[in-house]
Amino acid sequence: MKKLLSKKRYLKYYLLGVADSEGCFSIATKKQKTARFRWILDPLFQITQHKNNIKVLELFQKELKCGRIIEKPGQKNILVYLVDNRRQLKEKIIPFFEKYKLLTKQKDFQTFKEVVEALENKEHHNKGKFKKLVKKVFEMNLQGKQRRYELEKILNEIEETGSSETIRQTS
Amino acid sequence: MKKLLSKKRYLKYYLLGVADSEGCFSIATKKQKTARFRWILDPLFQITQHKNNIKVLELFQKELKCGRIIEKPGQKNILVYLVDNRRQLKEKIIPFFEKYKLLTKQKDFQTFKEVVEALENKEHHNKGKFKKLVKKVFEMNLQGKQRRYELEKILNEIEETGSSETIRQTS
Repeated sequence: MKKLLSKKRYLKYYLLGVADSEGCFSIATKKQKTARFRWILDPLFQITQHKNNIKVLELFQKELKCGRIIEKPGQKNILVYLVDNRRQLKEKIIPFFEKYKLLTKQKDFQTFKEVVEALENKEHHNKGKFKKLVKKVFEMNLQGKQRRYELEKILNEIEETGSSETIRQTS
Repeated sequence: MKKLLSKKRYLKYYLLGVADSEGCFSIATKKQKTARFRWILDPLFQITQHKNNIKVLELFQKELKCGRIIEKPGQKNILVYLVDNRRQLKEKIIPFFEKYKLLTKQKDFQTFKEVVEALENKEHHNKGKFKKLVKKVFEMNLQGKQRRYELEKILNEIEETGSSETIRQTS
């Protein structure tokens, strides 16, 4: 451990290996009545570990200079390091994994990055662009399998909201 | 990936992170009628990955210069890189993790190493030493929880076999 911690670069590749194994880049599609188009996209980066291995999560927190560690709801022995603040995702998490490239989760990360950057550029304020983002999210590996059946329903609900122009004027 | 592969040292720390997450050092206690004391200790190092991530397992195989990759029995989408040859465990796996130290699995590795080395030194040919090894194996984190109830039974069965002297003469 001393050697690992003494060389920053080694530590970063160690963390890359852990993230490639136990990390998760996800974007939840959530219903929110007050949102412009009734739905929102909520990106989240997380790493899961048994509570005995909290030191690994603390290394991520220290190295990435953001995020928090919480008990996984309903699972007392499992801890989660998570970053859900979009600014931090853009400024800390994405640059880290652009420099230290994932092997197994590279594709998920790429979509994650594109969606976070699109949200930062406020593309979700435009109905057409928002629908494209929602489609992209559903194409992400894991989520696609679980939730594809919902996509049409969500796109319809977005479509049924007022035109983006109208809403932009009133919000 | 290019950068990762271009620097051997970086790759090793990446693999260390993967092993600390998805690696498993285990020692099975198996009944074997033909064995000196009816039971044997069977050490195994393995890394599990989804079949889409076979490249990670291939990196382990290439880097550690031993082991094989198989489909996990009963789980078509899961692959396992495994090393069960005791000589290779001693000469390839153990030296790697002595040089590149695990953070979360260090304790398991330590016991694993002690048991493999004891087997290489033929301590299992002596009844008293073999019983100590079996106890040590049951104290390993994961296995202790699952199988502690069996320990007394196994120790009794070992005890009931002929003295190690007698058996040594006939084997």
